[in-house]
Amino acid sequence: MIDVVFTGAQVRPTDTAVVIDVLRATSTIGMALASGYERVLVAGGLEQAQELRGAGRVLAGERRCERPEGFDLGNSPEETLSPRGPELVLATTNGAPAILGAGAVAGEVYAASLLNLAAMLEQLASCDGDILLVCAGTDGSPTIEDVYLAGRLSAGLEGERTDAAHIAQAVAAAYPKALDALEASVGGRNLVRVGLDADITFCAQESIITTVPRLTGTLGDVAVVSAGAQELSPTHNLKSMKIG
Amino acid sequence: MIDVVFTGAQVRPTDTAVVIDVLRATSTIGMALASGYERVLVAGGLEQAQELRGAGRVLAGERRCERPEGFDLGNSPEETLSPRGPELVLATTNGAPAILGAGAVAGEVYAASLLNLAAMLEQLASCDGDILLVCAGTDGSPTIEDVYLAGRLSAGLEGERTDAAHIAQAVAAAYPKALDALEASVGGRNLVRVGLDADITFCAQESIITTVPRLTGTLGDVAVVSAGAQELSPTHNLKSMKIG
Repeated sequence: MIDVVFTGAQVRPTDTAVVIDVLRATSTIGMALASGYERVLVAGGLEQAQELRGAGRVLAGERRCERPEGFDLGNSPEETLSPRGPELVLATTNGAPAILGAGAVAGEVYAASLLNLAAMLEQLASCDGDILLVCAGTDGSPTIEDVYLAGRLSAGLEGERTDAAHIAQAVAAAYPKALDALEASVGGRNLVRVGLDADITFCAQESIITTVPRLTGTLGDVAVVSAGAQELSPTHNLKSMKIG
Repeated sequence: MIDVVFTGAQVRPTDTAVVIDVLRATSTIGMALASGYERVLVAGGLEQAQELRGAGRVLAGERRCERPEGFDLGNSPEETLSPRGPELVLATTNGAPAILGAGAVAGEVYAASLLNLAAMLEQLASCDGDILLVCAGTDGSPTIEDVYLAGRLSAGLEGERTDAAHIAQAVAAAYPKALDALEASVGGRNLVRVGLDADITFCAQESIITTVPRLTGTLGDVAVVSAGAQELSPTHNLKSMKIG
């Protein structure tokens, strides 16, 4: 069965969960791994991200869409194109809880974006069992761009669909281009407001990377995400984290 | 602001909440009041409905879509056309909690269906403040037909919209006719399975009544719903209920 939840908090047990935060967490995670970062440590808040600061770690994040003071990068996927170390620490308010929530109840957790759409579909086509597309949403509310991508993914998969999946597919069908959906969303308008229009255009690109980010470990409320092909043991990740 | 939640449990504080359970609770509530029932006592379960049995009360409800043993009526709106007493007791698993949940946090609570679409829009056009369209859903999951009606209502109202409202409008736009949305839904398919196809056709009729059901009182987890024009005091309703 292919199902969709419209906010991260609604995640439920499933075989495979696909977390979607198009603007911008899962786009940035995918781009960072595709650019050469070995892993992304996804933290639920700025303070927690700062506690993870260490050698080889690059801090990225946002506060009201912009780079927080003391951080190396903002939350623009384009900023990850030239890795400055092996690990990206990403502070994100909606993406991190969605990934961690999914990790607690799902067999496998992936992070999808328009950037890796084709590769994600290919990965999901080989998954057995139920697939739950988890729209991160923003502050507990659904967002157009996440539901749009959920609909694109659902439409590209074989199998029975829930009503929620049909609803997402209707949203995908309502916008002629991905960019239209991103520009129509409140998240898109917020980015325009702070002059980050370029992020919308960047995140609207389809299938420009083949990386499939996968949850490979967690520590408290930090999610460790690596490229799909790599099978890192959670123990290895936890030891390397040296929190605090 | 016009907002939509896709399941009853997601209801949040607002000025006006509009509960939507097209198949079939809010259709039956509207039809019963339009047909002459003075009020509908919406109970969350069959046992609770049976405890409300009394003189002048007609018991309606469903278990797996069909009339439960010992009940006077099923949950088909058409069965309410000839009132058999002043009060309809309706046992419904998704509609009742949605109405009660909305009543706990909203200034006003209405029950919408396709049957009263035009009247509902007229009522909402005169409401001040925020409007939250509350899709009841089924067992915690969104359903196409409720989101479809939320989209039709949102599209017919003036004002700013959230992303969730735009999502609902995309769903409304995806189905040429209301009947298409109802037939596509899992709720519709369940009714077909038990031979209640006629209910789908009935509930898909648009604006055939002008009644606007309104929450006028609650007692525990029973919602008292009356026609919009009547302003019954909650005290009156509570006294008249004689539960148990």
